[in-house]
Amino acid sequence: MLGGRTIVFLSDFGYRNEWVGICHAVMNRIAPASPIVDLSHGIPPLDVQNGALLLVDSLPYLGDDAVVLAVVDPSVGRDRDVALETASGRLIVGPDNGLLAPVSTALGGVTRAVEVTAPEVVLTPISPSFHARDVLAPAAAHLAAGAPIDALGPAVAPETLAPFALPEASVERGKIECEVLDLNRFGNVLLNVRESHLRDSGLDRVEAIQVDATSGSGRAHHVSTYADVCAGEWGIIVDPRGWLLVIRGNPGNAAEGLGNVGSGDPIWLTEARD
Amino acid sequence: MLGGRTIVFLSDFGYRNEWVGICHAVMNRIAPASPIVDLSHGIPPLDVQNGALLLVDSLPYLGDDAVVLAVVDPSVGRDRDVALETASGRLIVGPDNGLLAPVSTALGGVTRAVEVTAPEVVLTPISPSFHARDVLAPAAAHLAAGAPIDALGPAVAPETLAPFALPEASVERGKIECEVLDLNRFGNVLLNVRESHLRDSGLDRVEAIQVDATSGSGRAHHVSTYADVCAGEWGIIVDPRGWLLVIRGNPGNAAEGLGNVGSGDPIWLTEARD
Amino acid sequence: MLGGRTIVFLSDFGYRNEWVGICHAVMNRIAPASPIVDLSHGIPPLDVQNGALLLVDSLPYLGDDAVVLAVVDPSVGRDRDVALETASGRLIVGPDNGLLAPVSTALGGVTRAVEVTAPEVVLTPISPSFHARDVLAPAAAHLAAGAPIDALGPAVAPETLAPFALPEASVERGKIECEVLDLNRFGNVLLNVRESHLRDSGLDRVEAIQVDATSGSGRAHHVSTYADVCAGEWGIIVDPRGWLLVIRGNPGNAAEGLGNVGSGDPIWLTEARD
Repeated sequence: MLGGRTIVFLSDFGYRNEWVGICHAVMNRIAPASPIVDLSHGIPPLDVQNGALLLVDSLPYLGDDAVVLAVVDPSVGRDRDVALETASGRLIVGPDNGLLAPVSTALGGVTRAVEVTAPEVVLTPISPSFHARDVLAPAAAHLAAGAPIDALGPAVAPETLAPFALPEASVERGKIECEVLDLNRFGNVLLNVRESHLRDSGLDRVEAIQVDATSGSGRAHHVSTYADVCAGEWGIIVDPRGWLLVIRGNPGNAAEGLGNVGSGDPIWLTEARD
Repeated sequence: MLGGRTIVFLSDFGYRNEWVGICHAVMNRIAPASPIVDLSHGIPPLDVQNGALLLVDSLPYLGDDAVVLAVVDPSVGRDRDVALETASGRLIVGPDNGLLAPVSTALGGVTRAVEVTAPEVVLTPISPSFHARDVLAPAAAHLAAGAPIDALGPAVAPETLAPFALPEASVERGKIECEVLDLNRFGNVLLNVRESHLRDSGLDRVEAIQVDATSGSGRAHHVSTYADVCAGEWGIIVDPRGWLLVIRGNPGNAAEGLGNVGSGDPIWLTEARD
Repeated sequence: MLGGRTIVFLSDFGYRNEWVGICHAVMNRIAPASPIVDLSHGIPPLDVQNGALLLVDSLPYLGDDAVVLAVVDPSVGRDRDVALETASGRLIVGPDNGLLAPVSTALGGVTRAVEVTAPEVVLTPISPSFHARDVLAPAAAHLAAGAPIDALGPAVAPETLAPFALPEASVERGKIECEVLDLNRFGNVLLNVRESHLRDSGLDRVEAIQVDATSGSGRAHHVSTYADVCAGEWGIIVDPRGWLLVIRGNPGNAAEGLGNVGSGDPIWLTEARD
C-alpha cells in the first residue's frame, strides 16, 4: 500500500479553538503520508470514562494497522504520556490515566509500553498544559511513519499502567443490576448493558421489561427504532454501539420518568408483571 | 493519478458525537487512499430538502470522479439504501428518500441503480438506526476503491426511486411567485429564485423590487454585498450558491419585516412603484 | 515524497454551513494529492487580529513547504486577494487586509507578491461574497499542486500590501505596560506579553506580580497549571502559544476582578509589594 498508516484521533478538545488543528499540523509534518481520522473531539471535557468507552466501542471499525491517539486528560502534564502495543498488535498513544486501559484489555492486554520522552520525538519546550501537541501527537505520528515503539522513550512495566474498570452490569436469570452510563439530549438513558447481557438474563424474550430506578420506574417494550414507541410509552432499543438505551415517546422523557436519573445512578431490569 | 477517488460526504450528523468520525474510520479502512471531503455535516436534522439543495448547488465544485455520499434520513432503516450512476457518470450513495433525486435530475438522470445489500459490502449486524456506518459509508468506500456498482447489490429500476421536487418559482414578465427556502441567523430570507429567473422576468433591470409576503412587505434595491444596505433598508443580493437573498441593514431584520416569514411561505416579487 | 504539498487552512467560517467544505472540495479537485490541515475555523467572525496572531503562533508547528490559506475578511470582495512568498520561502494566500502582515514579518518579509486574478485560476463568476471559494482556495491549491506564484496573477509591490501591527507590550525594568488580547470563556485574561518580555523585565523572578487595570487589580503568583491556584487566588501562567494568561481560581473570574476588562484594555504589571 502507498501512504502511511492511518492515525485515528480522539479527544475532548471540541472545535472552538485550534487545539485539534495544531495537532493535525504537527502530525502531518512528521507523517505527511498518513491520513488522520477524527473519530470524535466531542468527548465531554475531562470525561475519561466516556472516552474509554468510545475507544472500545469503535474498535470493530478501525483499520488493523491504524495508530490510535486518544487525549482526555484532566491532569494534563502530571500523568505519564505513554505509547502501548497490545497483544493484538494495535499501537495506542495517550495519557496514562486509565483512558487506554479498557481498550487495551479488550485487545488482549498490553505487551509493550514506553513513556514518551525521547528528545527526537517531543517538541520542546513542552507546554505544561498541552502535552497533546508537544508529546502525544508527535509520538503517534512517529509510530504512523514507521518508528519502532522503543524509539519513543524508555520501557514502562505494563503492570504499572493506570487501570480503569468500566462499570459492569450484574446479570442473573431474570434480573440485571446496572447503571446509567449517559443521557442524551432527548433524555434517553444509556445503560451499561449489552445485547448479550440481555440474552444471558433471558430478558430478551419477555414481553415487557420493568425498569426501576431509586425514585422512578417504567414498563418498556423491545423496539428497534425510535419510531416504534408512541407518545409517553417506554421502549428499549440497542443503540448503534451495542448498548441498551431506554427511550420514551415524545413528549415523554425517560430520564425524568425515572426520577431524573443521571450518570452512575443504579437501575434494575426485571420482567414486567401485570 | 496516485491515490483513490475522493469521497464527498454530506450529512445532518453535526460534530457533537462520533457519527461522522466512525463513518470516516469505516471508509478509510476500505479505501485508505481516498481523500474524504466533508462537504457539510450541518444540514438541519432530517431536512431532506436542505440536503438535496446543497448537493445540487455544490455540483460545479466537485471533482468529476468524486463519489458522493449523502445522508439525511428521517426514516433511517426503512428506506432502501441505494447507489446510483447518473447519465454524467457521477456515482452517488444515499437513502432512497428523495434526497438524491434533484442532483440526479441535474446530472441527466439515473442510468443505473442498485440497492446496497451485498454481504461483502455491508457491516453486520446492521444497526437499525445507523445505516450510514453499516451500509452507506461502506458502499461509497467500495466505489471509491474501484468496485463496480453492480458489486454492491441487486439492480433497482431507476423509475422506482423516490422522487423529490424542489419548489419551483413561477416566473412571468414583471412578476415572480416564489417561496422562502430558508432563513439565516441574521433573519435574511433565502428565496427559491435564481439569478436567471430574475433576468427572465426583467426584474433585474428595475430600480427597486417590491417584496410582498402574506403579512408584510419591503422595497428592495439590487446590491452586491451586505455593506451596500443602510440601517433598516432592504436589499436583494445573489448568494454564493446562486439564489436570491432578501437582506435588510442592521438593526432591521428581513424575516421580521415580512411578517415573520419562515421556510415554505409564499413571496411575490414585482417592480416597486412610487 | 509522494503526494502534494500540504495546505494549512484557517478561517472564521465555523462549521455551521458548507463554507469550509466547499473550499475543501475546490482544493481537492485542483490538488487531489495535497492533504488539507484545518488549523482552525473558529476565529471569531471578522477578527483579523485574532487570525493574524494564530498564524504567527502556529508557525513553529507547520511543515516547511506547507502552503498557508488564511481567510478572515470583513470587506470580502473589496480587498485584493493576494499570494505571497516570504524571505523564508513560505507561500501564503489570503486577503490583503493585514491578516497576513504579522506572519510575513515573522518570516523575514515578503519577497514576492501577486494579486490572484488569472482566469485559469479563479472560478467564474466570482461571488462577491465568497472569494474564499472562487479565488483564494483555488490559488492555494494551484500553489500546492506546484504552480509558480507568477501563474496566479500580476505582481504586486510588497510595500503596497496592507500593514498590520499587533499591539506591542512596552517592557522596562520592573514594569510591563500591555493590553488584553482576548478573554476565554472562563474569564481568563490573555495579555500581549511573551515569556521573554517577562524575563527582560525581571518580573519572572519576583514573588508576586501586581496586575493593574483601569478599574480593578489583582496580586498574582507564577504558576504552571490551572490546578495550582486556589479558589479566588490569582495566577499567571504561560499559555501553550507562549503568551501570558492571568487566571483566577474558581469561582473567581480574572476579567471581572480586573473591572470587567475586554480586548484592547490596558494592563500594567509590576512587582507586588506587601
